[in-house]
Amino acid sequence: MARPVRVVVLGAGSWGTTVAGLAAHNTPTLLWSRSSAAAEEINTERRNSRYLGDRELPAGLRATDDLVEAAREADVLVVGVPSHAVRSTLTEISNEVRAWVPVLSLAKGLEPGTRQRPTEVIAECLPGHPVGLLAGPNIAKEIADGMAAAAVVATQDDRVASALQPLFASRVFRVYRNTDVLGCELGGVLKNIVAIASGMADGLGVGDNTRAMVLARGLAEMTRLGETMGADPRTFAGLTGVGDLIATCMSPASRNRRVGEALARGLTVDQAVAELGQVAEGVKTAPTVMELARDFDVEMPIAAEVEAVVAGRRTPADAYRGLRKVAPGDEHDMA
Amino acid sequence: MARPVRVVVLGAGSWGTTVAGLAAHNTPTLLWSRSSAAAEEINTERRNSRYLGDRELPAGLRATDDLVEAAREADVLVVGVPSHAVRSTLTEISNEVRAWVPVLSLAKGLEPGTRQRPTEVIAECLPGHPVGLLAGPNIAKEIADGMAAAAVVATQDDRVASALQPLFASRVFRVYRNTDVLGCELGGVLKNIVAIASGMADGLGVGDNTRAMVLARGLAEMTRLGETMGADPRTFAGLTGVGDLIATCMSPASRNRRVGEALARGLTVDQAVAELGQVAEGVKTAPTVMELARDFDVEMPIAAEVEAVVAGRRTPADAYRGLRKVAPGDEHDMA
Repeated sequence: MARPVRVVVLGAGSWGTTVAGLAAHNTPTLLWSRSSAAAEEINTERRNSRYLGDRELPAGLRATDDLVEAAREADVLVVGVPSHAVRSTLTEISNEVRAWVPVLSLAKGLEPGTRQRPTEVIAECLPGHPVGLLAGPNIAKEIADGMAAAAVVATQDDRVASALQPLFASRVFRVYRNTDVLGCELGGVLKNIVAIASGMADGLGVGDNTRAMVLARGLAEMTRLGETMGADPRTFAGLTGVGDLIATCMSPASRNRRVGEALARGLTVDQAVAELGQVAEGVKTAPTVMELARDFDVEMPIAAEVEAVVAGRRTPADAYRGLRKVAPGDEHDMA
Repeated sequence: MARPVRVVVLGAGSWGTTVAGLAAHNTPTLLWSRSSAAAEEINTERRNSRYLGDRELPAGLRATDDLVEAAREADVLVVGVPSHAVRSTLTEISNEVRAWVPVLSLAKGLEPGTRQRPTEVIAECLPGHPVGLLAGPNIAKEIADGMAAAAVVATQDDRVASALQPLFASRVFRVYRNTDVLGCELGGVLKNIVAIASGMADGLGVGDNTRAMVLARGLAEMTRLGETMGADPRTFAGLTGVGDLIATCMSPASRNRRVGEALARGLTVDQAVAELGQVAEGVKTAPTVMELARDFDVEMPIAAEVEAVVAGRRTPADAYRGLRKVAPGDEHDMA
């Protein structure tokens, strides 16, 4: 029998811990936490109380606060640290990971300045490794509670995805494959901005029609940018596109949606973020996405309004009026 | 100045009345109701209390119970009667409508037996007319209340859609165009079945992830059937596809969603329909759609489970377990 594949997950936030728990049901899994107290709690009490409350973690899951130890042990490396920490974390271990180890990203933000996607940052820090991502409509706490969900492993080489698929799958967690890494990754990045718009619509009390319109037109502009950048438009109609978009816009737990609601109540971005206690990825990503939209000459009226509200140049009510004013034309061509 | 275009809407249910109200803001509009009492109420009190409560209708909207009078007056004919009544209603007036008058469908069901879409029934009853539809994520009462929404006019000839667009548009009701009549119409038909599945998921309390998965995978199988039948897959990512799907699955008012919830509570289809007081279109359409899926050799696991529950061969809990079991593969190819 072949030696089991050892999965190492970097980052013990709610999603990193949940993914590590999924893998631990299938194969030996090690979770790296920056916090030694959190690693200790996982090892001794099988809980990560800061992020997942009292939920019990699988017996097979081990944790460490030693990043180098974690990197050296990996047959598969999963990067679950926040987008802004991917580069600094991987730089520390660029000489510790064996060269052929596949690296899967869980992050959903663009790096400010470079505008790079997480898999691009990973490819720079760990050149030559097969790089991909695990994404989809995945609310960590629901999955930790054993509710059914589905996700996508995206890698350029379908054989790599096929090998990774069974490491994370379970009876209630279905894992699909997709070779369109760019499309899958952009879906996760762009949906956060539409979720802010959807939250603003909710906060303004504008009805289910309007929210459905925001989501459908938001999906259209996500697809338009993605296709122009080289992604497969069908990817945006899948789990990492519309699936993740719906989960994020509907879930009361979504940070991006809640930021939108808070903005609609009249709070500033700083106040909204303070109320949430953490930054919503879409707030940081909106200006970077608008730079991409300008570079690729793609109309993104919803993202433009969100960016203007986030930058304090417009009120949510004005943004909403602005969205209504765009002249409708052919559904496929126009914004 | 050209004589204004007279719009005639057949059927004074909630959506027919709402569309007539939209048109009446732009052009002379006549609404036909089978009920003379309803026509009288609209003309004298500017209300349609049975379907729209106390909402005030525009002053310019007239109503009649005379089908032939209505047919003769039409420069544009809008068919807002239920799917099962389209053929019988149009057969009565097949010699009364001028031959070049465009006909727009509002219906979202397939004709049992013939399996025809409403625009196909219209084309048989009124041969030679330009035929299309008006569809989208449109909850009648929200639009009647003046909330923002968007819809699509779909006709094969884009010039016809361009001429019809301004008849229904307003500052808060955006109207797009699409030449993919088949795709737009299938979206409205198929989404009702996914809405039943989404309602079952809600009724079983399976979380936002699962609902997002049902919607995303439901959209994938809608797109797969549509593409095989000759529709443009992009249409399903638009207002009449994912937009209408989201509105239907999210709105507490959706009959199809409520049927699914009632089935999940253990009611039979007959009991669920009795509780609703009216038939949900998806219940009638599910077996017909499964016939299409078999004919076109397209995998539709969600529709298959809904059909089995509606036919009483499976419980919602079994259907839900069945959905989880399908082996995941490539996201684009597999069910």
